[in-house]
Amino acid sequence: MGRPRRSLLSRERIFAEALALVDEKGADALSMARLAGRLGVQAASLYNHVTGRDEIVEGIRWLVVSEMDIAVLGGGPWQESLATWARSYMAALARHPNTAKLLATTTIRTPLSLEMYERVVILLEDAGWPRDQVVSVFTVIESFAIGSALDLVAPSIMIDPAEQSNSVPRLAAALKGDRPDRAKETFELGLTALLSGLVVLRRETVHDGAGPPR
Amino acid sequence: MGRPRRSLLSRERIFAEALALVDEKGADALSMARLAGRLGVQAASLYNHVTGRDEIVEGIRWLVVSEMDIAVLGGGPWQESLATWARSYMAALARHPNTAKLLATTTIRTPLSLEMYERVVILLEDAGWPRDQVVSVFTVIESFAIGSALDLVAPSIMIDPAEQSNSVPRLAAALKGDRPDRAKETFELGLTALLSGLVVLRRETVHDGAGPPR
Repeated sequence: MGRPRRSLLSRERIFAEALALVDEKGADALSMARLAGRLGVQAASLYNHVTGRDEIVEGIRWLVVSEMDIAVLGGGPWQESLATWARSYMAALARHPNTAKLLATTTIRTPLSLEMYERVVILLEDAGWPRDQVVSVFTVIESFAIGSALDLVAPSIMIDPAEQSNSVPRLAAALKGDRPDRAKETFELGLTALLSGLVVLRRETVHDGAGPPR
Repeated sequence: MGRPRRSLLSRERIFAEALALVDEKGADALSMARLAGRLGVQAASLYNHVTGRDEIVEGIRWLVVSEMDIAVLGGGPWQESLATWARSYMAALARHPNTAKLLATTTIRTPLSLEMYERVVILLEDAGWPRDQVVSVFTVIESFAIGSALDLVAPSIMIDPAEQSNSVPRLAAALKGDRPDRAKETFELGLTALLSGLVVLRRETVHDGAGPPR
């Protein structure tokens, strides 16, 4: 009887360990050999569960997207839904900043992500955005969220003129009011600006009285 | 006589090789030992020119920022200056995407960057932005530019529903109109939205008729 000495290998366990590896060592450290080593198995054993590195990247994406608020995309005013989604998107990336470039530059195939984008597309089209602009609109939100996540995990003193303060007096003065929660305030300011700018753009894009094109 | 078999070691040569290393192998690969190996010298020789890894990161920042349009921050309408700066910022990061997280999460000390931020601060304060908001305003632009740079270097097909198209019909339809220059169009759409949103915010922030606080 007794419990097994080691928990059984599964896709879930492989993906969780892959995310932990990227969190700790960076995305360039992700290899089948290194992942197998951390799981205490032979690399060949991994192939009983996944087809290869590409599928593992999609598994990492699945875990990160699982931390985002997708349910909010189900309805309500589109600006508010997008704002809540963007906050959860930024927070998830800030917990896993080493995944930012990897996920942003790998083709998306995981069903959970596709479901998230399906919901965003429906939300935006129902709000009157033309079909040929919705991908751009949600990508803009994502790009801002990704960049802001990196800012959130940056040191609290991000710009340090130190002994050069005399040559950059206006910058030095502006930095004096820097607050520990600067990154979050900055994200909110940018999100407000971005969404109010998108509201203006949508109004200009949609033909008056013509309703949303389908 | 004859020329030396190997060009002399210099800070410029060290920084250029460090950027090439990060471009090729990722930021986690940046170590004094590896850099020395690429330059064909002992690691100890590097310390005759730089104090350590931190200074090399600032050297990489100097090279990337050198590719940005800082001169445009000297004057003109603030929205247009910021837009031109943002385009050059995004383009520079897109040429060196592996530097994005490294530079966004390391305290900035290089004089060229400080000069760039001094110019942005002056531009924004002269446009009426309150001193305690200027750092947030330019950080918002930077975050969007960094996220957009990663989008620009992403594969042209970024979302691929493939055989799952039936379960995400609206997304599949929206993606059909995807164009090869989507990322650039998306960046311009976001930049337009962001700047027009900032114009609205600035108007609300600045007290009517009171002029910019100093």
